[in-house]
Amino acid sequence: MATINDIANKLGVSKSTVSKGLNNATDISDEMKRKILETAVELGYTNKRLLKKEQKICILIENMDYKTPNQFGHDIILGFKQMAELEGWTVDIVPLTKEFQRSTPYGVFMIQQGYQASFILGFSLLDPWMQEFRSARIPTVLYDNYVKSNPRIASVGCDSQEGFDLAVRHLIQLGHRKIGLISGPLDSYILKARYQAYLNAMEKYGLEVNNDYIGLGYYIAESTRTYLPKLVEKGVTAILFSHDIRAISALTECEDREIKVPKDLSIIGFDDLPMTAYTIPPLTTIRQDRIALGKCGYYAMSCLLNNVPIGSILLRAPLVVRESTGPAPERA
Amino acid sequence: MATINDIANKLGVSKSTVSKGLNNATDISDEMKRKILETAVELGYTNKRLLKKEQKICILIENMDYKTPNQFGHDIILGFKQMAELEGWTVDIVPLTKEFQRSTPYGVFMIQQGYQASFILGFSLLDPWMQEFRSARIPTVLYDNYVKSNPRIASVGCDSQEGFDLAVRHLIQLGHRKIGLISGPLDSYILKARYQAYLNAMEKYGLEVNNDYIGLGYYIAESTRTYLPKLVEKGVTAILFSHDIRAISALTECEDREIKVPKDLSIIGFDDLPMTAYTIPPLTTIRQDRIALGKCGYYAMSCLLNNVPIGSILLRAPLVVRESTGPAPERA
Repeated sequence: MATINDIANKLGVSKSTVSKGLNNATDISDEMKRKILETAVELGYTNKRLLKKEQKICILIENMDYKTPNQFGHDIILGFKQMAELEGWTVDIVPLTKEFQRSTPYGVFMIQQGYQASFILGFSLLDPWMQEFRSARIPTVLYDNYVKSNPRIASVGCDSQEGFDLAVRHLIQLGHRKIGLISGPLDSYILKARYQAYLNAMEKYGLEVNNDYIGLGYYIAESTRTYLPKLVEKGVTAILFSHDIRAISALTECEDREIKVPKDLSIIGFDDLPMTAYTIPPLTTIRQDRIALGKCGYYAMSCLLNNVPIGSILLRAPLVVRESTGPAPERA
Repeated sequence: MATINDIANKLGVSKSTVSKGLNNATDISDEMKRKILETAVELGYTNKRLLKKEQKICILIENMDYKTPNQFGHDIILGFKQMAELEGWTVDIVPLTKEFQRSTPYGVFMIQQGYQASFILGFSLLDPWMQEFRSARIPTVLYDNYVKSNPRIASVGCDSQEGFDLAVRHLIQLGHRKIGLISGPLDSYILKARYQAYLNAMEKYGLEVNNDYIGLGYYIAESTRTYLPKLVEKGVTAILFSHDIRAISALTECEDREIKVPKDLSIIGFDDLPMTAYTIPPLTTIRQDRIALGKCGYYAMSCLLNNVPIGSILLRAPLVVRESTGPAPERA
């Protein structure tokens, strides 16, 4: 592991200058501070002084709500803290913006704050730090994202393939053949994975894959309003949604259009948010066990901190059958 | 969790009979003992009396050598025990035969021995208990095998896809285009996965997939002797092997035939067995970090024992470049 001496040698400055830079002193230039921090990251330096005081890790969060139990991130954070705090870690929750990511490199942020590892929630492929994770040296666990070949980065998530496979099989048993997909745009790792999982499941069971059965759009209500009637018009009798929140908007849309769920149309969500048990009708959905996801996030981090080069952990994605799916309607 | 009472009610016998059956008493019939044990498995009963005395888990092993450090299973078991014994578990290593599996159901074996969870090494798709794992109720972690949708079963292994992807990319950078595969037969989960990983990597990099470039055979020396000259004759300049042990037999075969490695033919193994650093030439191979695999096996088991429905853990599979790969030969 690199020392202050190594950083000083590499930059041709004194150890005391390096020490000032690492401890954010005011009597050296910002330019020198930046150089010192960047070199520290490059060499894999860990701030031991901070380590001795306190064992700190962080959850970095973007694009995800987490403050109340009904919000997606809440239980992931809870599960993670249940494991980590038991083992003596202080866990900071740090909401981030893309602007902040652009202003401060990831490695520099982690050293400055004295964090030994991080758990990354809600990042899309557009988040600036996603690039940096490819070569990051500090243990980092990504939820629903993946970085190839870097032994300091691990991924956790639910098995979209298993989930959509179970959903399509359930619909086939109910007599459905024309099964559609409504999803967000393919600008995130996980939405690409679910899109592929849908295609694979359809092919596996010998069902027609047809672009007219698929609708991708960013704004939830708008894309439901656009695609749901189009798909129904093409004869689709069941629709998988990339998230519960989209499936719930579809229930509202169906009510407005007097499409009866599940008599006219079956609907399956993804996530099993607490509210899905209380929608009208209650939603059939693929479960992401968020407490377990948080715990696995900590398991993966614990592996990386112990030099076990874990790549990914996938949780089971069971189908929770409620009342938004039923026998396929007879069509003329 | 089921009690002795539940088993007694289900079978319409007394609690003391059930207790005798569970404790292998001699004064009840074998038939009744079997019924009691099978019902105990069905209801998910755990033998608490045994639990209080001792916390026991087991590693069940078939088709895999593990007694010396050079044998594949040795370090997997070591890594597992390093984690498990630290946390107070007694770990039994139990070699198994297919005959034994046919004579005693898995669930019955686990209850009789008082094991709370197992780690399964070396099973092929032909091992009788593989069927039983689909519905097993006791926490079970499979190495290099996979069972769909059962929340009590998890899998650990190395990421074959990542490994073969890195291998093919390395060969392309050296100018190879005709890349072959020599593997065991596709009667195991992991050999199927590696076969698919080879096809995916070839397609991803736009290389021709040709059945003439692929040789699958059970007996190692024999299939090397059969396929290696055939592949070379078809113009193949580099061969991926499903295991180091096959790649090493190819080095011998090349020496007999005066095929120079890597001048005439590049060779890549899979596993990074200790001996691969000392072959002539030292073998380029895809690393399975076996200590880490063992540790992850324990991590996965620990998840299942805490009701975290983990499906799979995949470890990184880095390419270790040694001297059995080199620039593609110029061909007329």
